[in-house]
Amino acid sequence: MSMSPLIDELVAAFRCLPGVGQKSALRMALYLLERDREGGTKLSGALSRAMVDVKRCQQCQTFTEAELCGICASDRRDPKTVCVVETPSDLQAIEQMGLYEGTYFVLMGHLSPLEGIGPEEIGIDRFCKLIDKNECTEVILATNPTVEGEATAHFIADMVKSRNVLLTRLAHGIPVGGELGYSDGSTISHAFQGRRPFA
Amino acid sequence: MSMSPLIDELVAAFRCLPGVGQKSALRMALYLLERDREGGTKLSGALSRAMVDVKRCQQCQTFTEAELCGICASDRRDPKTVCVVETPSDLQAIEQMGLYEGTYFVLMGHLSPLEGIGPEEIGIDRFCKLIDKNECTEVILATNPTVEGEATAHFIADMVKSRNVLLTRLAHGIPVGGELGYSDGSTISHAFQGRRPFA
Ligand SMILES: [Zn+2]
Ligand SMILES: [Zn+2]
Repeated sequence: MSMSPLIDELVAAFRCLPGVGQKSALRMALYLLERDREGGTKLSGALSRAMVDVKRCQQCQTFTEAELCGICASDRRDPKTVCVVETPSDLQAIEQMGLYEGTYFVLMGHLSPLEGIGPEEIGIDRFCKLIDKNECTEVILATNPTVEGEATAHFIADMVKSRNVLLTRLAHGIPVGGELGYSDGSTISHAFQGRRPFA
Repeated sequence: MSMSPLIDELVAAFRCLPGVGQKSALRMALYLLERDREGGTKLSGALSRAMVDVKRCQQCQTFTEAELCGICASDRRDPKTVCVVETPSDLQAIEQMGLYEGTYFVLMGHLSPLEGIGPEEIGIDRFCKLIDKNECTEVILATNPTVEGEATAHFIADMVKSRNVLLTRLAHGIPVGGELGYSDGSTISHAFQGRRPFA
């Protein structure tokens, strides 16, 4: 028998989270009701603010509520080195390594003709303007080592190669078919330091 | 480098959930922002409504936004058989078995003198009035098989034994030291069917 419409609704809503099935969702709902209503209320507020106010950086396309994200706005990051990643999770995985001092460009996806995702959808125009404006000297292609990620890297390489820019690709080390955002720090660190020219 | 204050706040807020550490919290926040803002907004609404409006059943003390929960309000449940559990999670675990046709009393905890939780805090007065009013014939003691759960079961047994009520305890089957809410359905089902008089 259902506990109550409000609890049923909450359990169903928790299932939108990745990796959360019926059993975990119920556990989360009851945990908050039993032991941490203040935490639940805070989570509600944080969610509603983030879903509405988090937009995309005018320069690198990552998530931020400001016009420029913290990295683009920082004067300690090198705007001449740009690392191209598929998602903010990938950006975050590289940041957690703590070694990279350049900037980013976040495609928010990869080329996927079947899904109607072409160069415009991933912001290639904006990317080309950015590397010209900043007189970039290196573009690090850090798209995922999947079929789509490789195709996207090749497409960007073609766009960039007429310019006087060193193109590099992260070294092998990231498991093929895997996703950057789920790699551990030392794998990412190895891959980063062993990056090589992209032909 | 932090992504944005709003995202940081959301990641911190997700960590109030059981079993969610920094890495899962970040993954949840980015997943919603990247792929399911509508789901995130729904979750925010469901959370805020549940945290404010879910109160406790006037009869059995479980969670509900109504005066009586669905079980207490149902005329297909036997009010003369009352199963005493520690939490709504425990109640839910028994309901999922789908065999029990009686009603419940939810202590919302167990006796714990060190934490200042005495009979009044777990609603023993209300419980005694309930079994008298409903002329109960059986009380099933389904508190957890932990030290505190056993002590609570014995305390309730002492309160009830002057009345003409059969006292039973769930059979062994639930791992000692474990929690009912995390047991699988068949363990709970065995324990339920093998319940025996509580001396
Ligand atoms: Zn930016
Ligand atoms: Zn009730």
